[in-house]
Amino acid sequence: MEQYSNILKYKHLGIYTQNENVVYMREDCHVCISEGFEALTRIRVSMANRSIIASLNVINSEILLPNEIGLSDAAAKKLKVKENETLYVSHLEPIESLSYVRAKIYNQKLNYNAYNQIVSDIVEGDYSNIHLSAFITACAGDRMDINEISDLTKAMIASGQQLNWNKEIVVDKHCIGGLPGNRTTPLVVAIVAAYGLTMPKTSSRAITSPAGTADTMEVLTNVTLSADEIEHVVKQEGGCFVWGGTAQLSPADDVLIKIEKALDIDSEGQLIASVLSKKAAAGSTHVVIDIPVGETAKVRSMEMAQKLQNHMETVGNSVGLNVKVVITDGSQPVGNGIGPTLEAMDILKVLKNEERAPIDLKERVVLLAGELLELSGKVASGAGRQTALQLLESGKAYEKFLAICKAQGRFTRPVLAPYKTEIRAETSGILKRIDNRKIAKLAKLSGAPQSKSAGILLNVHLNDSVEKDQLLYTLYAESQGELHYALEYKNNHNDIITII
Amino acid sequence: MEQYSNILKYKHLGIYTQNENVVYMREDCHVCISEGFEALTRIRVSMANRSIIASLNVINSEILLPNEIGLSDAAAKKLKVKENETLYVSHLEPIESLSYVRAKIYNQKLNYNAYNQIVSDIVEGDYSNIHLSAFITACAGDRMDINEISDLTKAMIASGQQLNWNKEIVVDKHCIGGLPGNRTTPLVVAIVAAYGLTMPKTSSRAITSPAGTADTMEVLTNVTLSADEIEHVVKQEGGCFVWGGTAQLSPADDVLIKIEKALDIDSEGQLIASVLSKKAAAGSTHVVIDIPVGETAKVRSMEMAQKLQNHMETVGNSVGLNVKVVITDGSQPVGNGIGPTLEAMDILKVLKNEERAPIDLKERVVLLAGELLELSGKVASGAGRQTALQLLESGKAYEKFLAICKAQGRFTRPVLAPYKTEIRAETSGILKRIDNRKIAKLAKLSGAPQSKSAGILLNVHLNDSVEKDQLLYTLYAESQGELHYALEYKNNHNDIITII
Repeated sequence: MEQYSNILKYKHLGIYTQNENVVYMREDCHVCISEGFEALTRIRVSMANRSIIASLNVINSEILLPNEIGLSDAAAKKLKVKENETLYVSHLEPIESLSYVRAKIYNQKLNYNAYNQIVSDIVEGDYSNIHLSAFITACAGDRMDINEISDLTKAMIASGQQLNWNKEIVVDKHCIGGLPGNRTTPLVVAIVAAYGLTMPKTSSRAITSPAGTADTMEVLTNVTLSADEIEHVVKQEGGCFVWGGTAQLSPADDVLIKIEKALDIDSEGQLIASVLSKKAAAGSTHVVIDIPVGETAKVRSMEMAQKLQNHMETVGNSVGLNVKVVITDGSQPVGNGIGPTLEAMDILKVLKNEERAPIDLKERVVLLAGELLELSGKVASGAGRQTALQLLESGKAYEKFLAICKAQGRFTRPVLAPYKTEIRAETSGILKRIDNRKIAKLAKLSGAPQSKSAGILLNVHLNDSVEKDQLLYTLYAESQGELHYALEYKNNHNDIITII
Repeated sequence: MEQYSNILKYKHLGIYTQNENVVYMREDCHVCISEGFEALTRIRVSMANRSIIASLNVINSEILLPNEIGLSDAAAKKLKVKENETLYVSHLEPIESLSYVRAKIYNQKLNYNAYNQIVSDIVEGDYSNIHLSAFITACAGDRMDINEISDLTKAMIASGQQLNWNKEIVVDKHCIGGLPGNRTTPLVVAIVAAYGLTMPKTSSRAITSPAGTADTMEVLTNVTLSADEIEHVVKQEGGCFVWGGTAQLSPADDVLIKIEKALDIDSEGQLIASVLSKKAAAGSTHVVIDIPVGETAKVRSMEMAQKLQNHMETVGNSVGLNVKVVITDGSQPVGNGIGPTLEAMDILKVLKNEERAPIDLKERVVLLAGELLELSGKVASGAGRQTALQLLESGKAYEKFLAICKAQGRFTRPVLAPYKTEIRAETSGILKRIDNRKIAKLAKLSGAPQSKSAGILLNVHLNDSVEKDQLLYTLYAESQGELHYALEYKNNHNDIITII
């Protein structure tokens, strides 16, 4: 190969494509002509000591000169290339792990080695969005058995950093989403850390929901911390609430989650691998997992919940985690707020024991914190709930919460969004049903979680007696456009809240 | 919604992304700020009377001004927008058919209505590559039953133009690929049209092989004809060999095939729907389908071939096609050439009854043409092969072939590639095995089908007695880089041709 002719000069184009590596070259550049590349071909782009694989987009305008090459921001960041530096492009050697993806598409079982190679290549950025989507789809819909889920989980743990806290017991909790407003995690951390246990909590951002724990906590404090910073916070306070992404714990998960979001799916195998790989990589030993069950929750039946419980506990054991699954009521949103800022406000009300604090949120928190205290073996069986309640009502949990926020860099009080509309009851009656999926969608259309203060503040709950014109909920948005769009959806769906 | 603020001025960026609609906007443009878009969000881009859905890439450089908007070439072509024209962007209403894709991911059966909506949205360009890849994967690996394959086929037929030749009998043939060099189609067209039947042949380009019929025929004549031009050629000559893409027959197929190519898969349901939708939309009534079976062919066992035969014939009937499947030997490449130009040369040798014409190719051609003549009911059962042979050996088929090429706009003699390397036997012995997949990959790495004259010219066949240093095959390429890359693959794989 005439390597000389494959040299091009890097030009910053500033195109942000999220994770995908895209390379831009002129159709009349010497490399395109001599090598015969075509658009969407995958090629290798190299510097002296680093290289990436990228999808080619062909340029036929003046934004590049024939001897120049551009990269998407993600690709440029991975290569650490600077303006005018020299890049070398070459044909892509076959990505061997794609043969495993094809085998999975054709319903074959994969072993640890296969998942490990796939996950490594994903972390390297070698997979295009087309490949990632095929891998996720091929693994969805019950197509992974329990051994495969274990192997994928192990591969995901091995793909990134693994923390070691040098503690015998490191606790954690996780909620299988789908229940709007169910923001128990930061409260459980505060209680358990106040008790004296170690709980270095890493959370994801929202996949398909209006807020993830990381989105909500970002309203109150910094959640993007380095591994060193997290270690410091946990050593000092016993707990933290940070985003798991930058810590490079299970980095494949962060790539896969964005594709799952685009597809709006969250399959069992990927879900278990995602949750447990983050827990194990974070150095946890004892984990309580909350599965809310309800008609419109993520898990809709007891049968599904029990299957997930069984799989979670089995896979947990196989990767060295002591997992306890708690199945809870998922028939309606938890708390009053849906959306990062509004949920952060609920959290503070519970911590401060305010009269208007949402009781349902508080009840869940003491249940889960109690289970965790018992699972750790430090609190006697049956005494967990009461211990948790005391830590909350005494103000010790609030004190710990503020201390952790400050250790993470700041404590900021939440502020409501500038645009709002009140939605009132059109008839009197009993509130018989809240559609979790539709109310979550409404919150998302209002801008959550990207717009932190967007979302919904509920004034009613299931089985409430409601008068005509009574306030049901307030829609918040950060722009008129988003408020308008959410209202349009609301006006086209009269079954978000059902009053009979 | 403040529509005023959503207006941007179109600027041509000249970015070719193949089919995918991408929209480029500045991160600091008023629309991004006021609407809160994030990268990879899917948005609607509209003109006065047309609109498309596109994936957003966010620009943070001077290639766009804050009040400007760019589009990928595919998106700009669909919108027919010109420099400085005004575009309006808005939030994307949910794409309803994606709920069917999700249902399919979760192993549910879909009905005609579901496939129809999916296919319509695909043709509209509403699906991102992530969505397309998920749909293809969810349908692969035996996940569609026979009714679903029928429904997908019907939906694909309905999605585009449907030709009507006003003839009682319109014949066609198709070969289920995987056998390098198996270029029987143009020869069958020439024979059958010389007999007087109507055979308006539309073919695909290569999906995962080094040449499709359309790629090969493009060496000899124009294959990109409008529906009107095809009609004219067929009225005049009784047959044609054109690419099915521009004719807008089953246009969803052309989109899906590019994603299948990126994934390097070709699943049963999509395969049947792809083949039969093209045939039905092209107005065929009687179709012979050749399924070569061999260890390294696309179909590897008689069991698979018979299942495919059964499904092809059943789905064919359900869409009004009289389908006959012929199962043939697929143990080695057919003819001597692999790659568009080299296969075109084989075709001409057979037509001209040259002494060095590949006998195996000729045998297949008279078999398939014979079956087609019999299926049409015009030639008595058992007399098809002999009739075909006479038309070929009398020169009538060659005459017809040249006439069709000229009617399609040109007849060009094929020319060999400038770079070549001869591969010789390292030992004496019997040629026991040719790996179809690896030899096809070798031809692809040499540049085929994009580089038309690239590929492989075989000098040996299965069971030949071979001397040390005897010429096995010649590798052709249009660039040194491609020749080098193919040789590298060859040197790393010593089981492409096995001599014992």
